[in-house]
Amino acid sequence: MPDDKPYDPLESETMRGFNVLLGFRLAEWREDFARLELALEAKHLNRSGVVHGGVLATMLDVALGYAGVFTAEKGRVRRVVTLSMTTSFLGQAKTGVLNCLAHRRGGGKTIFMATGEIIDEAGQLIALGEGTFRYIGEKL
Amino acid sequence: MPDDKPYDPLESETMRGFNVLLGFRLAEWREDFARLELALEAKHLNRSGVVHGGVLATMLDVALGYAGVFTAEKGRVRRVVTLSMTTSFLGQAKTGVLNCLAHRRGGGKTIFMATGEIIDEAGQLIALGEGTFRYIGEKL
Amino acid sequence: MPDDKPYDPLESETMRGFNVLLGFRLAEWREDFARLELALEAKHLNRSGVVHGGVLATMLDVALGYAGVFTAEKGRVRRVVTLSMTTSFLGQAKTGVLNCLAHRRGGGKTIFMATGEIIDEAGQLIALGEGTFRYIGEKL
Amino acid sequence: MPDDKPYDPLESETMRGFNVLLGFRLAEWREDFARLELALEAKHLNRSGVVHGGVLATMLDVALGYAGVFTAEKGRVRRVVTLSMTTSFLGQAKTGVLNCLAHRRGGGKTIFMATGEIIDEAGQLIALGEGTFRYIGEKL
Repeated sequence: MPDDKPYDPLESETMRGFNVLLGFRLAEWREDFARLELALEAKHLNRSGVVHGGVLATMLDVALGYAGVFTAEKGRVRRVVTLSMTTSFLGQAKTGVLNCLAHRRGGGKTIFMATGEIIDEAGQLIALGEGTFRYIGEKL
Repeated sequence: MPDDKPYDPLESETMRGFNVLLGFRLAEWREDFARLELALEAKHLNRSGVVHGGVLATMLDVALGYAGVFTAEKGRVRRVVTLSMTTSFLGQAKTGVLNCLAHRRGGGKTIFMATGEIIDEAGQLIALGEGTFRYIGEKL
Repeated sequence: MPDDKPYDPLESETMRGFNVLLGFRLAEWREDFARLELALEAKHLNRSGVVHGGVLATMLDVALGYAGVFTAEKGRVRRVVTLSMTTSFLGQAKTGVLNCLAHRRGGGKTIFMATGEIIDEAGQLIALGEGTFRYIGEKL
Repeated sequence: MPDDKPYDPLESETMRGFNVLLGFRLAEWREDFARLELALEAKHLNRSGVVHGGVLATMLDVALGYAGVFTAEKGRVRRVVTLSMTTSFLGQAKTGVLNCLAHRRGGGKTIFMATGEIIDEAGQLIALGEGTFRYIGEKL
């Protein structure tokens, strides 16, 4: 029986390593855009009982990277390395689901820049990020 | 029997939450300086098999924060929140121990700035960080 | 004869010092938003004949600051100092008018964060900025 | 009569455009290092009468760039574009000479990272910078 299901880049993408440890889910992904979700747990918190800045920085790093490497082509995998990233911390969250919305903002075939924001369930802005990334060798 | 052991700020400091999940160890701590150690494991890696940028950003965030809140006074706990932090990624590491050396560079009673660097066992520079932090209410 | 003209915060704001040297014009200003204009001249260019990164960083620094200190109250002047700012450079411009659109994104009475972007006349994105600012004593 | 004077990269380097407007002087230049000097004047100040953040950001941008493109080869000119730069502001200066010390910290043939600091005549730390740069086509 043939598999008539069209190729879904989102389903084909699997989290690994540190991304699994944190529990991110790639919830939306299209050209120049990615949305990452994270359901907060005790392990994500810092000593003050709110989400650790490192969790937010990691979430932005991952989402900004995804925003630059979308492809609708089956079996194609585009990779990036982060050159630099700045995170600003504006709010605090303890529970619920965080959403990170990331947009590729410019660049070319070698480098791209992206920005993103993390918001909690109440729509409160938790963190902002701005990063520069470099494409590395493709695996086809 | 009296406890003649002098107060050791380093021993009194306990990692919690996300810092435990990552496995950081505060290895040195004095006025305006902190050194954090991390023994790399599979959980710290990204899909390319090298240490995840989020691990490095988190390590810098934690070390830079510690560099600004040292106290030799028993029972005193100084807390900070990160306002913003920039991380630059210069090298890759897969195994071994990473060291993050952080220095408080300036500021006053409300705000401080710190910089740090992460080096691997071979002395290779892996990442650089520059951050702005804000002191919050003390717990005495 | 009474002056019936309502107070216009925009007109009351005068550029000084380095801002005059650069030739910025505060073109729009309201709660949490500022737009700055710059007509490019030879003095703004670098050795490659395109606008100097320092001009773009300065424009973002000024616009982001304005976005956090709008007041409709006559005679009130709110001041800020920049704690840190990150600029990403995405495009090049040589001539024409640059517009910098800046938004206050969060913060409180002591600190605020803002982001902004610089676009040229063709709508091309030239630079992005993300900054952390601190309010200082008001002059009333 | 032969010119026996050895080639001096420092003397061969001429400031242009915006760098002239600001008045920078390249005071030291060698592999992976540059020192830039600026004698403060009224034109460099902001409305509060201290050096404008944009002057400091520009000085860091220029010095960090120089730190990555030193060459002792006569007639060779290496160029860079800034991809992103973060500046932290730690002190204020009104008069005197500012020195910006910049170091190339890593990278390769395409990209490099640099950090720098600006100090005033009293040795006070005024600003810190961390940037990512990209080499562009050489002119030989």
